[in-house]
Amino acid sequence: MTFLAREEKNPIIVPEQIRPSSEDFEVIGVFNPGVTTFRGKTLLLMRVAERPKCHDERYLYVPFFNETTSSVDIKCFDRQDTSVDFSDCRVVVDGEGNRYLTSFSSLLLATSENGVDFEIDPVFRMAPSNKYEAYGIEDARIVRFGNTYFISYTAASQYGICTAAVTTEDFVTFSPPINIMCPDNKDISLFPEKIGGKYYAIHRPSCSEFSKPNMWLAQSENLAFWGDHKLLMSVREGMWDSARIGASSVPIRTDRGWLVIYHGADESCAYRLGAALFDGDAPEKLIARSREPFLVPDMPYERNGFVKNVVFACGSVAEGGTIRLYYGAADKYICLARIGLDGLIDSLEEVHS
Amino acid sequence: MTFLAREEKNPIIVPEQIRPSSEDFEVIGVFNPGVTTFRGKTLLLMRVAERPKCHDERYLYVPFFNETTSSVDIKCFDRQDTSVDFSDCRVVVDGEGNRYLTSFSSLLLATSENGVDFEIDPVFRMAPSNKYEAYGIEDARIVRFGNTYFISYTAASQYGICTAAVTTEDFVTFSPPINIMCPDNKDISLFPEKIGGKYYAIHRPSCSEFSKPNMWLAQSENLAFWGDHKLLMSVREGMWDSARIGASSVPIRTDRGWLVIYHGADESCAYRLGAALFDGDAPEKLIARSREPFLVPDMPYERNGFVKNVVFACGSVAEGGTIRLYYGAADKYICLARIGLDGLIDSLEEVHS
Repeated sequence: MTFLAREEKNPIIVPEQIRPSSEDFEVIGVFNPGVTTFRGKTLLLMRVAERPKCHDERYLYVPFFNETTSSVDIKCFDRQDTSVDFSDCRVVVDGEGNRYLTSFSSLLLATSENGVDFEIDPVFRMAPSNKYEAYGIEDARIVRFGNTYFISYTAASQYGICTAAVTTEDFVTFSPPINIMCPDNKDISLFPEKIGGKYYAIHRPSCSEFSKPNMWLAQSENLAFWGDHKLLMSVREGMWDSARIGASSVPIRTDRGWLVIYHGADESCAYRLGAALFDGDAPEKLIARSREPFLVPDMPYERNGFVKNVVFACGSVAEGGTIRLYYGAADKYICLARIGLDGLIDSLEEVHS
Repeated sequence: MTFLAREEKNPIIVPEQIRPSSEDFEVIGVFNPGVTTFRGKTLLLMRVAERPKCHDERYLYVPFFNETTSSVDIKCFDRQDTSVDFSDCRVVVDGEGNRYLTSFSSLLLATSENGVDFEIDPVFRMAPSNKYEAYGIEDARIVRFGNTYFISYTAASQYGICTAAVTTEDFVTFSPPINIMCPDNKDISLFPEKIGGKYYAIHRPSCSEFSKPNMWLAQSENLAFWGDHKLLMSVREGMWDSARIGASSVPIRTDRGWLVIYHGADESCAYRLGAALFDGDAPEKLIARSREPFLVPDMPYERNGFVKNVVFACGSVAEGGTIRLYYGAADKYICLARIGLDGLIDSLEEVHS
């Protein structure tokens, strides 16, 4: 794609740069950052995945937040137990069908003057703090309204996959988290301004018996309560985005409409990035969409990591005619790609509805 | 249960009383009515399930609403096609995993002076009318705020299981349906008054990979937009409500708290009814809960119908110390049980949190 250029220094942030939460843990991934600009700098709210250091290959140690004790506890699975399903490196399923995540994610902060070289905040850590976050917090999206930054993120637990939200003005003090959508829901991305007097969010209810994981649109008057849910965009049979899709950036206002970068996967489970353009005044109206993904896992750091063949984004910075897209690669690294806005929009195929 | 008495005339409404939507269809069930009082009468908004009259046992005909043509179309499955799963009488699953409902539900209306003998409205039919309702509309709950009746119901389609809502003042003219919760979600039941300045609803997000189908609580300021989702009550391992639960009545204010009748199923898929009591000022606080169900499928009309062993309610009328509970039996009939309020609450077991 001529309008796309990967940063030469990729990956720009790697797990070795991140301190673990304690000596007993190791960092296995830093990826899928929420992105904004704050006090003139590019700010990343990075997903940092950890696991207990393993001293015996026979066992798998699964960390989780224990609300009763307010501590991180460990559940131990014996790899020789044939009733337990270890086939997915991200998930363990016990004999009763209960699912656990093999890693435990928190959100850490990094800032940069030039958008490429990041300084990792040595203190900041937004860690799971309630029962809805017991298996970790993941994949933040940040949107700014005036002086307030609205941060939504995925909260995983035995109660399902919730989307929680907090607000902050300074990235030091945060409002208490609330669940803005009921489980299971992921990939919530708010439009950065009101449209026709309403706030809008793209979201991705998952795991329906009757439906594939599609992108939906919701409205709100106050950012806390959401409704009037409408199907926004569906998976496409036989194409790169046939199995699941979800918003991968905060929508970007352009003079041609709202540009939304989204991730899609097919049955191979490779995650790729495409884009869609929605009407500037009517965000439920799809105008154009990528026939082919514009970013596919090609580089070694995108092909091999914790999960193979994944590029996945949660945010970007648009400046003039260029987007700086910060994306997770192979669920292990943070990378940067620069995208020409007009080139990307020109590449989309018109949708006739 | 000494506080429970089934009506002697049960079932009080049967499929033979209901006219089909056209000559080509037959009514196979009238069940799970939403309940309110309107102009001095008891009003039921009944789920009426139909299917095409079958002239060849080899084929299964599945009706659905076609939004493009605004007509009800038929999809035909060959029972000899081994790639299709016919094992659940309610659902067909094709070779690609797409699910269809074997019956097609609309909402019909009945009223009664005495609460036992119902007159079925010969004209009223709320039928599927948009793409979210393509597989039918089901299981209405009705709650009255002033002169406005707020009706929520399950809308099924290839886009998932949505909860839609309409309002009416006269049961003649209705507002257009909107989806108040994203899919999959069922069994939404609103508290009939504001509590601490907010509306509250019990809902049941389903089909999570990580969680069982539990009851959740949401808040709203305007009945259209909902948020601050909290887990309200969970399934209980090893008990009658171990597999799934959901609100089965509009919450009833008593001087001992909010009484909620709920349905539960265990792995046997038998649906039974229990109750829970929540704090009158803090509906998220569970006070007491049925150890055993108070209504189980015992009678022939509860044990045999379209689906065996089901009692399932969507509404009731509380008068003085008695509840008239209208419930669906075996997904085929409407029945009535009278319940002594104090007796039911006395039967609940205190919950220590």
